[in-house]
Amino acid sequence: MSEALLASITCPGDLKRLTTEQLTQLAAEIRDFLVAKVSRTGGHLGPNLGVVETTLALHRVFESPRDRVLFDTGHQAYVHKIVTGRQDGFDRLRQRGGLSGYPSRAESEHDLIENSHASTALSYADGISKAFALRGEDRHTVAVVGDGALTGGMCWEALNNIAAAKNRLVIVVNDNGRSYAPTIGGLADHLSTLRLNPGYERVLDLVKNALGSTPVVGKPAFEVLHAVKKGIKDAVSPQPMFEDLGIKYIGPIDGHDIVAMESALRRAKGYNAPVIVHAVTRKGFGYRPAEQDEADRFHGPGSFDAETGKLLAAPSLKWTHVFADELVKIADERIDVVGITAAMAEPTGIAQLAAKYPDRAYDVGIAEQHAATSAAGLAMGGLHPVVAVYATFLNRAFDQVLLDVAMHELPVTFVLDRAGITGPDGPSHYGIWDMSVFGVVPGLRIAAPRDAATLREELREAVAIDDGPTIVRFPTGSVAADTPAVRRLGQVDVLRDDDRKDVLLVAVGSFAGLGLEVAERLAGQGYGVTVVDPRWVRPVPIELIGLAGQHRRVVTLEDGVRAGGVGDAVASALRDAAVEVPLRDFGVPVGFHPHGSRSEILASLGLTAQDIARDITEWVSRMDDASIEVA
Amino acid sequence: MSEALLASITCPGDLKRLTTEQLTQLAAEIRDFLVAKVSRTGGHLGPNLGVVETTLALHRVFESPRDRVLFDTGHQAYVHKIVTGRQDGFDRLRQRGGLSGYPSRAESEHDLIENSHASTALSYADGISKAFALRGEDRHTVAVVGDGALTGGMCWEALNNIAAAKNRLVIVVNDNGRSYAPTIGGLADHLSTLRLNPGYERVLDLVKNALGSTPVVGKPAFEVLHAVKKGIKDAVSPQPMFEDLGIKYIGPIDGHDIVAMESALRRAKGYNAPVIVHAVTRKGFGYRPAEQDEADRFHGPGSFDAETGKLLAAPSLKWTHVFADELVKIADERIDVVGITAAMAEPTGIAQLAAKYPDRAYDVGIAEQHAATSAAGLAMGGLHPVVAVYATFLNRAFDQVLLDVAMHELPVTFVLDRAGITGPDGPSHYGIWDMSVFGVVPGLRIAAPRDAATLREELREAVAIDDGPTIVRFPTGSVAADTPAVRRLGQVDVLRDDDRKDVLLVAVGSFAGLGLEVAERLAGQGYGVTVVDPRWVRPVPIELIGLAGQHRRVVTLEDGVRAGGVGDAVASALRDAAVEVPLRDFGVPVGFHPHGSRSEILASLGLTAQDIARDITEWVSRMDDASIEVA
Repeated sequence: MSEALLASITCPGDLKRLTTEQLTQLAAEIRDFLVAKVSRTGGHLGPNLGVVETTLALHRVFESPRDRVLFDTGHQAYVHKIVTGRQDGFDRLRQRGGLSGYPSRAESEHDLIENSHASTALSYADGISKAFALRGEDRHTVAVVGDGALTGGMCWEALNNIAAAKNRLVIVVNDNGRSYAPTIGGLADHLSTLRLNPGYERVLDLVKNALGSTPVVGKPAFEVLHAVKKGIKDAVSPQPMFEDLGIKYIGPIDGHDIVAMESALRRAKGYNAPVIVHAVTRKGFGYRPAEQDEADRFHGPGSFDAETGKLLAAPSLKWTHVFADELVKIADERIDVVGITAAMAEPTGIAQLAAKYPDRAYDVGIAEQHAATSAAGLAMGGLHPVVAVYATFLNRAFDQVLLDVAMHELPVTFVLDRAGITGPDGPSHYGIWDMSVFGVVPGLRIAAPRDAATLREELREAVAIDDGPTIVRFPTGSVAADTPAVRRLGQVDVLRDDDRKDVLLVAVGSFAGLGLEVAERLAGQGYGVTVVDPRWVRPVPIELIGLAGQHRRVVTLEDGVRAGGVGDAVASALRDAAVEVPLRDFGVPVGFHPHGSRSEILASLGLTAQDIARDITEWVSRMDDASIEVA
Repeated sequence: MSEALLASITCPGDLKRLTTEQLTQLAAEIRDFLVAKVSRTGGHLGPNLGVVETTLALHRVFESPRDRVLFDTGHQAYVHKIVTGRQDGFDRLRQRGGLSGYPSRAESEHDLIENSHASTALSYADGISKAFALRGEDRHTVAVVGDGALTGGMCWEALNNIAAAKNRLVIVVNDNGRSYAPTIGGLADHLSTLRLNPGYERVLDLVKNALGSTPVVGKPAFEVLHAVKKGIKDAVSPQPMFEDLGIKYIGPIDGHDIVAMESALRRAKGYNAPVIVHAVTRKGFGYRPAEQDEADRFHGPGSFDAETGKLLAAPSLKWTHVFADELVKIADERIDVVGITAAMAEPTGIAQLAAKYPDRAYDVGIAEQHAATSAAGLAMGGLHPVVAVYATFLNRAFDQVLLDVAMHELPVTFVLDRAGITGPDGPSHYGIWDMSVFGVVPGLRIAAPRDAATLREELREAVAIDDGPTIVRFPTGSVAADTPAVRRLGQVDVLRDDDRKDVLLVAVGSFAGLGLEVAERLAGQGYGVTVVDPRWVRPVPIELIGLAGQHRRVVTLEDGVRAGGVGDAVASALRDAAVEVPLRDFGVPVGFHPHGSRSEILASLGLTAQDIARDITEWVSRMDDASIEVA
């Protein structure tokens, strides 16, 4: 019977005929379904277990897709997918050709936002509600946003505009106190205060339980409660900041009480103005391993044993581990080195620094702009900050890296994890833009290590540079076996040296191994190939110019978009140096590429040794034919 | 006597021995000085007239440069410059080699932040105060930020972190209710409420006077006051949002009462924690034409008659006017076209749309990220938004343009005013990055009109595109005379056609005239030159490939950084098409270029017809020699 109810839900309308008892049963079935499916495929578990009742209530109260329900950081949309006809897709979740881990317009008319970066939903919602108002359409806009995402500046910009516009718009704050990790900052304290609003005794127990087991960085919640009770500091009572902005506030609501949630949402729907519904939830609710998950490993686990919660991934050395380990060693030696993370202490490895040197690691929340500019401030104050973020997220701080850091020639090192083709998280998580976009920043030096040894080495070189910013970028996953150089020429590592100089192959970072495979295939056809890892790709090493001049052809190979990438930069440097050697650049085509495994995506883009070697030989023989014709 | 006092102030220490009467006199002298100097050179007047007393008080209370005083949007730092030994520099303010219009570390040890983008100072201050704390240095950090800048999301990110860090840090909110223009949004309403805190009756008169003459978008201040008096909506009293975040609040203070300001700052200095000092000021205070300046023309005027306030600039047709005029015509015809500006309604021309269609123009405040993503929402709702911002400011929304707009293939048109070399505002206002950075965005099309006619035409083409985003970029200043095409080839305009096909010169947008001049010089030396304006530079028009194949050489010429620019893109397209024609690209070198007039800067970068023609002839003859050698 337990599966019977869930199987009967094929669209949001099916939810409306259920009784409260049936909804409770459905919620339990959905949790079982989520644990069973995600334990096999991997995916975002904790966030989705936390929004089961909220999502059911939303789809009972609002009329999707006529009303627009938007999920910030789409990884909390699994339940939404389950009740909008996509249960069958979960067997191939996040796999190539299978169900996306985020909303996808191609999958369903109920999906609208495909971007999985945080803090954007309120801005979309502001625009959509303005469009509905201007066009005179009687439709509702609802945005679900986590408390963690509220630390992002975009939310502030949006709230300010939503308040001014006064349009009909419902904001559900899904407050688990730790959207990715314990939410940091003054906002967290404020939300704690709201949670403890004495008017909501019934919720208080839930909150006590939740907060009792969840550390809140900064002022602990009970301390706030104590302060409120003892004395109305400054002769005023605590009051929702949101109402200061002119946005109606309902809450806090127990986000796992579906009746209470539905009632709050109906009240909110009735207002003809912006309103916030503050739902207090527990991440991982209903699955004990995820609820007790202090290290937040169930935010987005790989496959695991559903019974025990034991993660199944084979232990292997990840790029992140190598970085984290070396950063601690550097911090041991240099007291001026500090770390910054943007709500990603564990996934970026900054947690390891924080464990040893808590005063020297800062988690700024989901706030990449602030991460960059506060790093500029730290550097102005005499420190050398290491800012560790996913490559895709640094795009949010382009202006700050350009003007606040680079224009001031400040020694800040940005460490970009998950650079290049990432895979299962889909297009908005690809770290393929950094070498192009940050390649225009004056004075910024970019290193792309190829293995653990060069990551350690290049990180040390980056932190030793004191007259400007540096980027060290590396991919996701397990680190490749070390590829020793046959010799070093200036700052360039030569990985293969043939006597014949037919092709100079410039293989960037993690593509070094691919470059050697390509060279092997070319050698099999009689070509002589020199393979080099430039180590630092911006500025273009002068040694590459000299090497290029000694070869008949140059090929570049990079794990980033071709437009404005290393290939373009090398081509430009060759033009400027009047070295007229034909060049061909291989990299990621400009585009939004679908989810899938890293190797599947690379294959689909023609970035395999076989494809590249074939393209090169065709190109070389075509050119040779052409020169014979001319001659 | 009146000049005597000012002349005696050569460093902040000189301020400390002055009596209150002398300070009042000094403030008056500084205002006379500012009006006299800026009326001749142009520059930021209104903001600086508003911070005279605040700046004097800051330098009496704190010990710069040991204590760090940071000015957000450095255009409010003139008074700071006056009292830190730089009075003599004002005769050459914003001129090449003269005093910068922003803080400059090269000018003074009292300057630290050179970035003139808004909303950054709190993030720098967070970093600096953390560094002081970590290093155990007994120094203060002070950030002066306008109320307008608080609408930027970075401020929110910073406040949240500052509250959590609990370090010693003074934030002076310089609240004139209209940092650039009337401040919009819920925050403005909230600040109005604070201004009207009944505990500060003395300030109330000032505020009444100030707000009586200054329209506040959204809820007028007196309405807020009325609401507060009548009824304590929701049974709570208004309370500073800042304290919700855990930041101590002092204010509001009459920012033109130097004794009150000094006293507040001394109190703030005494806290060993973050504290906000809320100073209510009047933009343009003490100079009637600026105080009465509804249209905010004295924010940053050109030269003017100091006596009458009459602006002296010769009336000429600006690029902005052409855009604003055409946008209104398009809006007349298409009800789905709406406009967005980020606190720049007048300078970008959106004000003209707002005047005719107030419901169809949105000012989102200094919030470029929200501008982009709310535009995505508007487009999802069936509208075609035109987002008009300065080119340099769109850098703040790279991630949003990439994922929120382009990944969703939404029809949003970004109009980039002040693109390319701008001039007097210095390095952080140059609009030279857009074609490179946004050139990597999949599906984004970029147009660069060359004159008024093509601006009108390309804007219409952009707004007609319904399957993805577009950028239309044009420079600052007066629009050039129309340059008719001799013929159109596909989407490319041919501006000059010689019989001999020695050089194909691709001149981007406003460089069309320069390209024709270069061609004239080359023709004088016997070369045959074809000059084309590609009109749309991304994606690279297919016609350019065909044309390139018909010429012996290709030259590109663009008003943007070379790295990843149009030259690189054309070179890449030629490589991909296997068209092996030598190419040389001219553009702005990657770097932070100093302030000066546009023509001075272009000349200093070698971007004159004479220099370019010489470089091309040298290049061509060198290559011809080389091929002769080979042959």
